[in-house]
This record gives sequence, structure tokens and C-alpha cells, in this order.
Amino acid sequence: MERKREKNEEGGIELEGINDERKEKVKKEDEEFSVERIFEDKEVPSWRKQLTVRAFAVSFLLSVMFCFIVMKLNLTTGIIPSLNVSAGLLGFFFVKTWTKLIAKSGMLRQPFTRQENTVIQTCVVASAGIAFSGGFGSYLFGMSEQIAQQSEHRTDGFNYKNPSLGWMIGFLFVVSFLGLFSVVPLRKIMIIDFKLTYPSGTATAHLINSFHTPEGAKLAKKQVRELGKFFSFSFLWGFFQWFFTAGEDCGFASFPTFGLKAYEYKFFFDFSATYVGVGMICPHIINVSVLVGGILSWGIMWPLIENRKGDWYSADLPPDNFGGLQGYKVFIGIAMILGDGLYNFFKVLSRTLIGLFLKLHERKANSQIPVTQHSFPSIESQSYDDQCRSQLFLKDQIPIWFAVGGYVAIAAVSTATLPHIFHHLKWYHIIVIYIFAPALAFCNAFGCGLTDWSLASTYGKLAIFTIGAWAGASHGGILAGLAACGVMMNIVSTASDLMQDFKTGYLTLASPRSMFVSQVIGTAMGCVISPCVFWIFYKAFPDIGYPTSSYPAPFATVYYNMAKLGVEGFSALPKNCLKLCYVFFAAAILINMIRDGLGKKRSWFIPLPMAMAIPFYLGSYFAIDMCVGSLILYIWQKLNKAKADAFGPAVASGLICGDGMWTLPSSILALAGVKPPICMKFISRATNNRVDKFLGS
Amino acid sequence: MERKREKNEEGGIELEGINDERKEKVKKEDEEFSVERIFEDKEVPSWRKQLTVRAFAVSFLLSVMFCFIVMKLNLTTGIIPSLNVSAGLLGFFFVKTWTKLIAKSGMLRQPFTRQENTVIQTCVVASAGIAFSGGFGSYLFGMSEQIAQQSEHRTDGFNYKNPSLGWMIGFLFVVSFLGLFSVVPLRKIMIIDFKLTYPSGTATAHLINSFHTPEGAKLAKKQVRELGKFFSFSFLWGFFQWFFTAGEDCGFASFPTFGLKAYEYKFFFDFSATYVGVGMICPHIINVSVLVGGILSWGIMWPLIENRKGDWYSADLPPDNFGGLQGYKVFIGIAMILGDGLYNFFKVLSRTLIGLFLKLHERKANSQIPVTQHSFPSIESQSYDDQCRSQLFLKDQIPIWFAVGGYVAIAAVSTATLPHIFHHLKWYHIIVIYIFAPALAFCNAFGCGLTDWSLASTYGKLAIFTIGAWAGASHGGILAGLAACGVMMNIVSTASDLMQDFKTGYLTLASPRSMFVSQVIGTAMGCVISPCVFWIFYKAFPDIGYPTSSYPAPFATVYYNMAKLGVEGFSALPKNCLKLCYVFFAAAILINMIRDGLGKKRSWFIPLPMAMAIPFYLGSYFAIDMCVGSLILYIWQKLNKAKADAFGPAVASGLICGDGMWTLPSSILALAGVKPPICMKFISRATNNRVDKFLGS
Repeated sequence: MERKREKNEEGGIELEGINDERKEKVKKEDEEFSVERIFEDKEVPSWRKQLTVRAFAVSFLLSVMFCFIVMKLNLTTGIIPSLNVSAGLLGFFFVKTWTKLIAKSGMLRQPFTRQENTVIQTCVVASAGIAFSGGFGSYLFGMSEQIAQQSEHRTDGFNYKNPSLGWMIGFLFVVSFLGLFSVVPLRKIMIIDFKLTYPSGTATAHLINSFHTPEGAKLAKKQVRELGKFFSFSFLWGFFQWFFTAGEDCGFASFPTFGLKAYEYKFFFDFSATYVGVGMICPHIINVSVLVGGILSWGIMWPLIENRKGDWYSADLPPDNFGGLQGYKVFIGIAMILGDGLYNFFKVLSRTLIGLFLKLHERKANSQIPVTQHSFPSIESQSYDDQCRSQLFLKDQIPIWFAVGGYVAIAAVSTATLPHIFHHLKWYHIIVIYIFAPALAFCNAFGCGLTDWSLASTYGKLAIFTIGAWAGASHGGILAGLAACGVMMNIVSTASDLMQDFKTGYLTLASPRSMFVSQVIGTAMGCVISPCVFWIFYKAFPDIGYPTSSYPAPFATVYYNMAKLGVEGFSALPKNCLKLCYVFFAAAILINMIRDGLGKKRSWFIPLPMAMAIPFYLGSYFAIDMCVGSLILYIWQKLNKAKADAFGPAVASGLICGDGMWTLPSSILALAGVKPPICMKFISRATNNRVDKFLGS
Repeated sequence: MERKREKNEEGGIELEGINDERKEKVKKEDEEFSVERIFEDKEVPSWRKQLTVRAFAVSFLLSVMFCFIVMKLNLTTGIIPSLNVSAGLLGFFFVKTWTKLIAKSGMLRQPFTRQENTVIQTCVVASAGIAFSGGFGSYLFGMSEQIAQQSEHRTDGFNYKNPSLGWMIGFLFVVSFLGLFSVVPLRKIMIIDFKLTYPSGTATAHLINSFHTPEGAKLAKKQVRELGKFFSFSFLWGFFQWFFTAGEDCGFASFPTFGLKAYEYKFFFDFSATYVGVGMICPHIINVSVLVGGILSWGIMWPLIENRKGDWYSADLPPDNFGGLQGYKVFIGIAMILGDGLYNFFKVLSRTLIGLFLKLHERKANSQIPVTQHSFPSIESQSYDDQCRSQLFLKDQIPIWFAVGGYVAIAAVSTATLPHIFHHLKWYHIIVIYIFAPALAFCNAFGCGLTDWSLASTYGKLAIFTIGAWAGASHGGILAGLAACGVMMNIVSTASDLMQDFKTGYLTLASPRSMFVSQVIGTAMGCVISPCVFWIFYKAFPDIGYPTSSYPAPFATVYYNMAKLGVEGFSALPKNCLKLCYVFFAAAILINMIRDGLGKKRSWFIPLPMAMAIPFYLGSYFAIDMCVGSLILYIWQKLNKAKADAFGPAVASGLICGDGMWTLPSSILALAGVKPPICMKFISRATNNRVDKFLGS
């Protein structure tokens, strides 16, 4: 089953990679039989006809839904699993229902094709991608007063930029389209000449192709039913939980499953359907890594460091001061993330360069046989599928002047606008970014095609450090760095997204033009929807961004402190923290080297440093949810492997989407000032006796 | 599937009857094929060999377990579903494991036969029967100070007799064996001549027979596995819940699932695995009846009566005074129970008498063909199965002198002893009871054979009113009545139990002698185990018997007040209560008449008055559990009828047994003074704000 775990690159920061075995599997299947023979008798609509109104209507609905889900994930833990299966299933479901209804009324003019399905998929993923690359859980929200204030603990003397609908939408519009234009000219080289795999894009295409075969449609229907069942369950469960959350530390999310002492150290099962679902989608090793990280940090290190209170750090500091324990939590986590990021950056970069060299070499060898850009490679070397696909892929062209012109025009507008939004980001910073960006975007798109690994957040971090240091502490380097991170991340991330979609389009005979248009429309939708959704969260939950909130937005804090580190150096770190950071930075690199040295098969028990770092700041509660999800899937697979593989992702998607969807009414209730009526409180026996006496009197 | 819902008569007070359709089904199946042909090649061991040490060792273990379960049910709601399936499955499982282990060590002398299985079944059911007929949830505990005090609200001037291990064991020993001796001589007439059905006994026999066929054993193994799974789940769930119950109104059992207002009126799901399991075993109509009763009383009537506070009853009374709302709750419930009981008493009695008349007539007709007591009826009139069974049933005799001598001897000891235990019960009361008892025991055994309805508790109530009124209020009539109830109930209940077991033995070729011995040993076990188990509860939970306790023992209060009513008349009732009692008494009779008038099929939607009366005092929380169980079974049956029918009872048994078993460690923890560490409290938002402020300061 290649339907699982596509496009982990969406989860960017945390959950990239480890898809190689799947990649190979997909490749094999690809060779075994001809997909296009099945669809031979089906006409491929022209690219204009692929872009239907109903497709974008459905895309809009799904975009709003996925924005809520991604935003919730962003703001709770920052772990974002692949939502492609749910997007695919739901898109299929909505349009199928739509066409059925219209067909009944006799007004159906155009049947539902897989090309149209690909358009929906592309549009939704593009739109939801903005919810991630827009940085609402990282760099963008990291600029806000409440995040900065936690790290600075001063009432003045620090720069911040609070979110506001206007500048967020403007910012996203001027930076999000550049990536698309920067890689459009390279599509033929990457997809046809280099035949890059794009495992996620390929898996999505397989999914869509399977929907449009008769058995596939039957299976899809069953999966949709399963998804719907768990969607409703998860939504109602969220609703039920809400009633018991009147007040802090109330409700199921504060359930001290393993006792009050363990709860204090964030070991508890918080009954979150979302993270159980996430655990079912993520590979077992990620779930275990997160738990191992949680045990290592909250179970061992933090209690040990806490014992040094008064020695390593001042005992008078409030518990959330970054000069104290909080500082260790954040900076050690950052060290591990940076170590892992740097290792993978160089690994992917070297593989990209080697791959590029080999591909170019290969191409040169091929070009001995006279092949012009627009003709097709010799028939012998190509399967029937490849022939059909190449033919259609090359039919609809996007002129180079259009791409270059678009890039330059938007870059110009962006350079003029951005300094007005972020006063500390100067026009020359932006121009430098825009000169390097196309190369980096190409690198990322190419690396992603080879390894399924989008390094968008790593490029973003690079921008934080370089631009931040360049601007300097006295000139608001922190904000400049974070803004630069946003610019960079958006370009690099949308570039690899687009190339993935081209691959999907290639495999489903969707036109590159319709893919491009759909991506543009999806991005535009995302640029409006995502800030609005974030705005709802921001207004509905005033404690957002604080560690005690149900939306702690951990990566906002991490990004702010990364920028601070880049600008101000290590001076702010508490005692011994830097040493520990070095250790964990080195450990992250070492663990990665051991993993790669042992090879896929023999390294299955070695945790992933990136995944280990997430609970350093947050605690293990979501790790326990995820392990529960892992366990459920494991038992299910033991009982009935075929069924678990076919329906596991649908069940997980249902759990994630239902709970995510509940955040919409829950934030509306919060905005309307409707408060839950009951508090489910967990107190120790001694406290309970006191409370009972107090209430009795 | 005739495995479900056998022996509802165990639940005596509440859940008798409505087994007729099953009865007929069993009868039909009986005629269709020959069971004994399957077992033809298997030797039947002699009656002494049927009574093995291992059988009684297993019986003892199971007896202790079922005593805990029945006691828990007694003391929480008084609803006791059929536990025969679990007893059968677990007995089979234990001895199978035992024989397998011994066989491996090469020391197995005797294989496990169905006769031995019947012996275990008989012994366990007899022993667990004492936990019910011993009156720990009704008459016996009803005599205690805490129950009496609630109804009297005086510190002096009322009689009570607190439980104590010594007199309870003594009492049970002198009254529990009389029933056995009283009906032994009639076994041939009832089983062979009258061919009474004994639906529960027959179903149990079918179950045991099926275990010993190859496919049956395979199915049983799977059922045992299912039972084990849900046993563990339910046990662990009980364990998990315990941690959160530090203090009153803490924990899952106080979960205001439908809000705090509904909780106040006892509408909530209390997460009790036991009652979900009970709901899965009881017919849907019983579960619905209980819920309807709950809605009628706590949803409509009590709030309306509460509005009359100050008019109908004094507003100054404490909330649990029987002169106030509490009185309405108990006495209206009693009226319904008595109405239903009386209707069914006359119904069953008339059916018994008609049946007896017909059977005697039939027998007389048969005796035209010369048939002596010990010879067999003509071969033509009998199937192969009947021949085998009759032959073996008549082989081992129990002499009449033994039965009569035993009865007289025990009656004499009993008459001499009982007045020493209960000072208000005089020797002449006891003699009168013992003169009438054999006739009533016969009536009950016969009626039970015809209708599967044991009227033990109705005969007990009869004794309460007659002996209570005879002794008179000034001579401790209440205690005398309750004690007489115990004497009567034990005789009548064990008599019908024994006859059921004879039927089971008849159908499994177990000897009547081994049945009798097993029943005697089981009863003796019960006489020791039950008081001990009750004693553990009594000592471990000091608030037992109070309405706010987790063990409110509702029928203890009901029985006490019944006795009070019988002795003191209606003077104590609050205003308009008597009128309402008349209405509900009449309604109970009327509803029963309508049910019987419409016939089984057309009356499926008419609730059972007896079941409706239970929540009058307790509230609907367990009704909601039971309806959840009903719903689960209903959905399961819709999804997969065959599987639901085969495994539903096993799952339900697992849920009931696991939760029941948890009461053992939970009471040990309570006795040891180990208190749960956390309180899961449910408070309104306003209260929570006050509490947070209080705890913060």
C-alpha cells in the first residue's frame, strides 16, 4: 500500500524523510503494469476543462478545513503528518457526491475525471501548505509580543511585531508566488529528463489513479465511510470534552492518567484524538523517538537540572524565565534541531549535487541520439505509460518569458513592499535573498525529488542566522531574521510543492498548465484563509503562545530564540547550558551518522534526533497519544494486516480531521464568549479535603 | 442460540420471566436431533466418580468469585442477570486447563466429562444462589441499624440487628438445606412423569453438552478467550477508576455526562462496566423499562413532588427523611413491586395449578398402561435420548426416608436455634412456616419448571407481611417479618434451584445423587463464603446502605419499609403518598394484564412494571449503563448477528466478572486503609472560580 505517509515534507520541520523503502516500492509497482492501459478509453480533457468551478469550490471548502487542522497542529506541537490521504479521499467524496446529485438532475455536462481530482488535490495541498509555511506556528507568530516577552522578561527594550490580518495577508501575497515562478522552467528537466521520483507526488498520483478504477472507487468509498465514522466520533469527542473545560487544568486534556506527579512532569494521556491519529500515520520509530525524547528530557534531565536550582541558575526566577529551567528546555531543543538540520542539509545537498551530476551526465549520453527539446525520447526506451504521459506533459507549455517575467515582477513588488511591513528588513537584504532564492529553490525541489525531503525550514533557519547577524542586534536583527526566514521558507517550500504536483500531474495526465493555475489559485486561497484562521485562534484564545495554554505554539518560541541566538550570541544562556547544547548538537549529528552508517534495516531501533527534540519544551503528553496511535495500528496490523493497511490511514485521517474541525466551533464559541459549564478537576486527596471543607462552609 | 439469558430466576426479585419463546425454541431443538447419539461412545462415570476433588476445588474458586460479583450487584442495584454462561465457560476453562496440565505430567486418571462439568455448574450456582437468597442486599441487611435508622430517624425506639459473621453463617446453615430435602422425593414426578421444561436448567444442559462436542469445545475456547479479554479490560478499568475516587462525588462513577443539572437528578453515565454487561445480557425491553421508570420518576414525578415541598411534606425535613421525598421514592416503588409481584403470583399459581391438574390427568391416562415406579415408560413413546436419560436418572435413587428424615431433623434444629438468633421470631412462627414450606417449595419448583419463574422473593414478601403482622409492632414485628422472609425465601429458592439442577443432570446424564451432593456442598460453601464476602464489603465501606454511597443496597431499604408497612400500616406515609401508591399498584397490575392480553408479540413495547420500579429509589444512572449495553448488542447484532449471538454473552460476562472481581482488591485496599490518591471532581464554572481563588490564596 503506497497510500500511506505521503508528503511528510509537509510536516517540514520535524517529520521529513525516512520514506525510502516506500519510494522503492512505488517505483517497482510502477514498472509492473501499465496504468494508462486501464484509462485508455477515457478522454483527457483540455487543460481549461480540467479547471472546473466545482473543483475550486470543493477545494475552497477543503482548504478551510485543512487550514484549521494544520493551524491546530502548528499551534499545539508543530508536528504535522501527511494529510494527503484525507485530502484525496475527501476531495473524491465531495466531487463524486456533487456529480451524482447533478447527474440525477440531468444537468451534468462533464464527468468527474482524475485530472480534475488532481487539480483539487493540488489546490488544497497548496492552500494548506501556506498554513504551514506562513509561519503561524513559527517565525511569524515568533515576532509577537507575547512570545518575545517570555524570552526577554522586560517590558521595554525589545522589538516585536504583533500579528494583524492586514500585514499578514499582504506579506504572504508578496512572498508566496515567487517559488512557483522560480522553478516552472525546470519542470521538463526534472520530471522527464531526470525522471526524479518525488515519492509523495507519485504516491498521491497512485492514490488518485486508483480512485478512478472501478475497484479503487469501491475501496475509496469504504475508506471514505471509515473516515466519516471516525471523523464524527472525533468531532463529537472534541465537543464532549469541551463541556468539562471551564477553567485552567480542567478537562480531559489535563487528565493525570499516570498520577499527579507524572502529570507535573507532563507525562499523561491527554485523550487527544488528533495525536492518536497522528501516531497512526507517523512511522513507529517517530512515535517512539518522541517518547524517548520526552523521557530523556522531562523524566531525567529537567529534574536533575532542577536540583541544581540556586547553583546553575537563580532560585528567585519565575518558573517560565529563560534564564532558568525554561532556557535549558528551549536551547537544548534548538541545539538538537540545528544539529539534525545541519547534518541533513549537508547530506541532502551532497546527494543532490551527486544526483545532479549523474543526471546531467546521463542526459548528455542520451543526447548523443538526436533529441530536441520538444520531440519525444526514442520509443524503445520508454514504456507505454511514459509515452502517454510525456506526450501530454509536453503538450501544454508555459513559456519561459512568462516565468522569468513573473519572478522579476513579483520580486520587484516584494522588495518595495516588505521593508514597509518589517522596518528592520532592508531592501538590500531582500534583494540578496531573491538572488540566491532560485538556486536554493531548485536545490530543494531537486533534493525533494530524490529523497522526499523538503529542507524548507532548514533554509529558513539559514536565513534567520545570516540576515539576523547582518542586520545586527541594535537594528532589530531578531525581527529581520525572522522575516527573512519567512521570505526564504515560502519560496523554497512552494517550489518543491509545485514540482511534486507536476509529478502528480504527469502521472495522472493532468496538464502542467492546469497544475500551475491550480497551485496559483490554491496559494492565493491559502494567503487569505490561513491568516484568517490564525486570526480566529489568536482572538479566541488569548493565552495562545504561553506554555500553559492549550495552544503553546512551541516553535514560535523556538524560532524567536534561534533568532536571538543568531543575533546576540550565547551570552543569554544560563550556566552550563551552552555545554549541554554542544553535547546535544553533537549527539544529533552522531545519531544521524550512526543511523546512516548502519543502514535502514539495522538502524530501526535508533531514534530520530529531530523527533526527540520536540518534547524537550512541551513534555511527553502528545508523545503518549502518538504511541497509543502507534500501538493501535500495530495491534490492528497483527490482527489483520490487509485491513489495517487499507483503512488505517483513513481512520487516522478521520481522527485528525474530526478533532481539527471541532476547533472551528470551539473557537467560535470562545469568540462569542460562551464558556463551558463544568470543570473536571484533578486534585490530590489532601487538597480535595480542603476544598470540600471550603465548599461545605 | 439458547445459551443466552438462562436462569433469570437468579435475579429473582427483578428479572424473572419472559423466557417463554426461548423455552419453546429449546424444546424444539430437543426434538430435532439426538444429543445422546453423539455421546454414545463415551462412558458415564458412576455418581461417586462424578464428584471429583478437582471439581469442588474449581467450584470453590468460582464460588468466591461469583459471590463477589453477586454481592456487588446486590448492594449496588439489586439487578442480577444470569451468570450461568460465565459459570459454565469458566468452569469448563479451569478444569480443561487443569486436566491438560495433569495430562502433560502423565498423572491424569480421569478425563473431564460433562457430568463433572454439571457438578461444577450445580455447585457454583448453588453457592452463588446463597449470596442472593441470603438477603445481604435485602432482608438480612435490612435489619441493620443504618437501614432502620434512615427510615425511622430516631436514635432509640426501634429494633435492629446488625450483621455479624457468627449469626449470619449460623442462620444460613439452619435454613438453607431444608429446601433441598423438601423436594427431593418429587424429582421423578417433576422431571420424568411431568416432563417439566425448566428452561434455564435445560439451557444450561445444552451449554454443557455443547462444550463436550468437538465443535462446541472449539467455540467454547473462543468464547473463553473473548471473556478473558473483556474480563481483563473490565478489571483494569475498575483499577484505573479507583485512582480518581479520593472523596465523595469523585471519579468516573460521578461523571455528569449530561451536565450537572441532570447529574443532580441521577441522569448520567457512570462508566460501570458491570451494568453495561448486565445491559448486554438482559433483554432490550428490561433495559428500556428501567430507563422509562427512571425518566418517569426522577425526570417527572420527583421534581413535581419537590415543588409541593412545604405543602405535601414539611420543608424542614432533611433530604433523606422518609417523611419527605425519600418516602415517596421508596413507597411508590414498593407499591409497584408488590403490584407486579401479586399479579405474577396469581398468574403463576393459577398456571401451576392448571398445569398440575393437566399433568396428573395425563399421568393417570398413561398409567392405564401398567407402568411401575421403577420400570420405564413404553419404548414407542420415548426418543432414544429420553430412554438413555430416564434410565440413568432412575438408576441412582435417593430414598424417601432420607429426604423426610433430613427435613424433620433440620427443621427441629432450626426451630430450636432461630429464636436465639432473632429474639422476635418465636418457635411457633417457625413451625408454621415449616409446615407450609414444603407445599410452597413444591409450588415454586413446579411453577419454575413450567414458566422459568422463581417466585422466591414473592413468597418471602408474603412471609414478611403475615409473620410481621402476627408478631405485631410492639413485639419487633419488623425484625420477625424480615427473619421469616429469610427462612421462607431460602427454602423456596433452593428447592427450585435443585429441581433445575436435576433437569440439567437429567439432560447431561449426571446422576441425581451427584447433583444432590453437589448442591449440598455448594450450599454449604455459599453459607460460609457469602457472609464472609458480605462482611468484607460491610467492613471495607462504612457508608454502605446509605443512598449516597457507591453501595446503597436499595432493596435493604425497600424490604425494611415493606416490613414496616406490614406491621405499622400506612400511618407513616407522607401526604398523598398512599394515593400515589394505590395508583402505581393498580398500574403495575394493569400493565401486566395488558402485556398478557396483547400476547408476547404485540406487547414488545410495553415496559415491565418490576423493572420500572427499580430506578424509583436509585435514579437512572445504571439504566443508562444498561441501555448502552443494549445499544452495543443491538448494533453488534445488526453488523454480525451470528457473531453477536455467539460472543455477546461471553463479552457481557467478561465485563461483569472483571468489574466484580475488582471489588475484591478494592475492598482489601479499603480495609488496609489505602486511599486513592486523586480526586476527579466535577464542579460548575462558578464554583471552580471560587475554588481556584481559594487554592491560589
